[in-house]
Amino acid sequence: MALEATPVLLVDRDVLDRNIARMAASARNRGLALRPHAKTHKCPEIARLQVEAGATGLTVATVTEAEVFAAAGFDDLFVAYPLWVDAARGARLRALAERMRLTVGIDSAAGARALAEHAGTGIGVLVEIDSGHHRTGVAPERAGAVAAAAREAGLEVVGVFTFPGHSYAPDAPSSAAREEADALAAAAESLRAAGAEPAIVSGGSSPTALIDVPTPATELRPGVYVFGDAQQLELGAVAEEDVALTALATVVSVRDGIVVLDAGSKILGADRAAWATGHGRILGEPDARITALSEHHATVQWPGSSPRPAPGDRVRVIPNHACNAVNLVDELVVVSGDAPVDVWRVAARGCNV
Amino acid sequence: MALEATPVLLVDRDVLDRNIARMAASARNRGLALRPHAKTHKCPEIARLQVEAGATGLTVATVTEAEVFAAAGFDDLFVAYPLWVDAARGARLRALAERMRLTVGIDSAAGARALAEHAGTGIGVLVEIDSGHHRTGVAPERAGAVAAAAREAGLEVVGVFTFPGHSYAPDAPSSAAREEADALAAAAESLRAAGAEPAIVSGGSSPTALIDVPTPATELRPGVYVFGDAQQLELGAVAEEDVALTALATVVSVRDGIVVLDAGSKILGADRAAWATGHGRILGEPDARITALSEHHATVQWPGSSPRPAPGDRVRVIPNHACNAVNLVDELVVVSGDAPVDVWRVAARGCNV
Repeated sequence: MALEATPVLLVDRDVLDRNIARMAASARNRGLALRPHAKTHKCPEIARLQVEAGATGLTVATVTEAEVFAAAGFDDLFVAYPLWVDAARGARLRALAERMRLTVGIDSAAGARALAEHAGTGIGVLVEIDSGHHRTGVAPERAGAVAAAAREAGLEVVGVFTFPGHSYAPDAPSSAAREEADALAAAAESLRAAGAEPAIVSGGSSPTALIDVPTPATELRPGVYVFGDAQQLELGAVAEEDVALTALATVVSVRDGIVVLDAGSKILGADRAAWATGHGRILGEPDARITALSEHHATVQWPGSSPRPAPGDRVRVIPNHACNAVNLVDELVVVSGDAPVDVWRVAARGCNV
Repeated sequence: MALEATPVLLVDRDVLDRNIARMAASARNRGLALRPHAKTHKCPEIARLQVEAGATGLTVATVTEAEVFAAAGFDDLFVAYPLWVDAARGARLRALAERMRLTVGIDSAAGARALAEHAGTGIGVLVEIDSGHHRTGVAPERAGAVAAAAREAGLEVVGVFTFPGHSYAPDAPSSAAREEADALAAAAESLRAAGAEPAIVSGGSSPTALIDVPTPATELRPGVYVFGDAQQLELGAVAEEDVALTALATVVSVRDGIVVLDAGSKILGADRAAWATGHGRILGEPDARITALSEHHATVQWPGSSPRPAPGDRVRVIPNHACNAVNLVDELVVVSGDAPVDVWRVAARGCNV
């Protein structure tokens, strides 16, 4: 196996194994179930490693992702999304539920009724709450009202969940973890007041999942932790040696202080949070910055203190957001050190519906 | 044919045809060859419409894109990129050049020598120059030196090219078009002084391609114009009725003033220029703004003056950057009005190497 053509996404197998083991041990030590989000890797081989390390099941974002992981043999999936279910999607959910333990998210009475009408009442639901990210999810104290509407529609309410996405900002992870715990506690209480026992209280994002705050959570759903990325690095959630996913790139053009690579937004993704220092990072060159990103070019401000690479040289780029980078390729090349050892298919790439 | 599941990318056939005809007429009226960039659509059906309207050939960004369009029957391709050519890539280029008119970009003597060594000397080259975007390309007055090195290596130099990417900013297109013309004139002069006749003087980006400035260009290479996108809209390069590409999305969650759609960065792309007003636009709702984008959620600030949609309602989202959105899907659903009329495969999706 050779690495002839760039750009290509590499997964460092040793770092990957370490990341999976670390999160599994942390969850186990705190008595929390671990249900990793598979949208990050979309790859059955990696999901299998997570389950072998103790994950109780997987989280997915879409019905098609659920179908891909079902076909790969996984039998306990949670669609952590307030799906809008029509007849066609309902039939697909029913077919999945017949062969596995399937749960899905809801955040409105209308969504619950559509689910029950089109997918039947055999699928357990978790009520999504907003713990500060202000995306989907109801206020924690309204969880009981949504649960009551779901039960009225005939659905079994098995718990509550949230995604503390506001942890994705500098200095935010610790306070976001505390707000998440408070919101989950309020939501669980609201569910109990409505007569539903929250067997599952589910939270967790990669920046917060390793932070040990008192929490009513029973389950964590981090995704990015398997790989790490430049966002996690800049948030302080991981160190550079914890980054398992990189894009191998070739230098194609060089001028004073500027190095241009053949890895652009069509392999790294175009994610750039307002607080990010650039469009990705260069492995082993902490002071280099990707100051501009086109579809097939990364323009890198190379530090004067480091030997500047020449056209034809290769470097590894750490994408800002691993989930969107992986979704751009059909295969991940698995390496141990610099040696390719395997190729894994991104089986759920593009599974948006 | 039904549009059952969202999110999905739609191409409005009537708008597409109009966009293709408008650019073809504008180039023809100015006596310019049109060589559209196929990285935008990656779709042979659309490339065929461009050629039928008078395009002299296609531009591509990678060797794999060239291979896909060669397999679809196109026989005049320009790889507008300073490729770094090793033995494997050289063999692929040689195989392509045997069956068509193939030209490629260079921007260094080292790049030219690597091309000649590994792909042979049967491939014509265009020297890339920097007209103000400061990405790849040499200063215009250095074009002759690169051309001389290329001829020394045995290559035929057929011209110069540039991408005026600095046109992608508010109020920038007109001045970028003038700078592009000046840079191409200086580069052509530099080539002549080095004894090479620039038969092809190639420029053009979608924001500048319709701007009629005095130019030494013989050829235009716009890409995005076939679709239009929110960037072109906000730059004033197109009006909303010129936008042919949208993501059909379903409302999944609603609260005061906020509407959440099931179209996120995994179908729209994560592009957001510093000057963009949001992460995309809503067709028919010019005052709505996508204030946050996750992988499967668009959070839309809905204008108080418009009726707020309810869960289950559908809207069309205009991606910020058409090229990255198209590269996320396997198929484009072609519509006439609201009716699906065809499905086109994104044949060159993911062709990065």
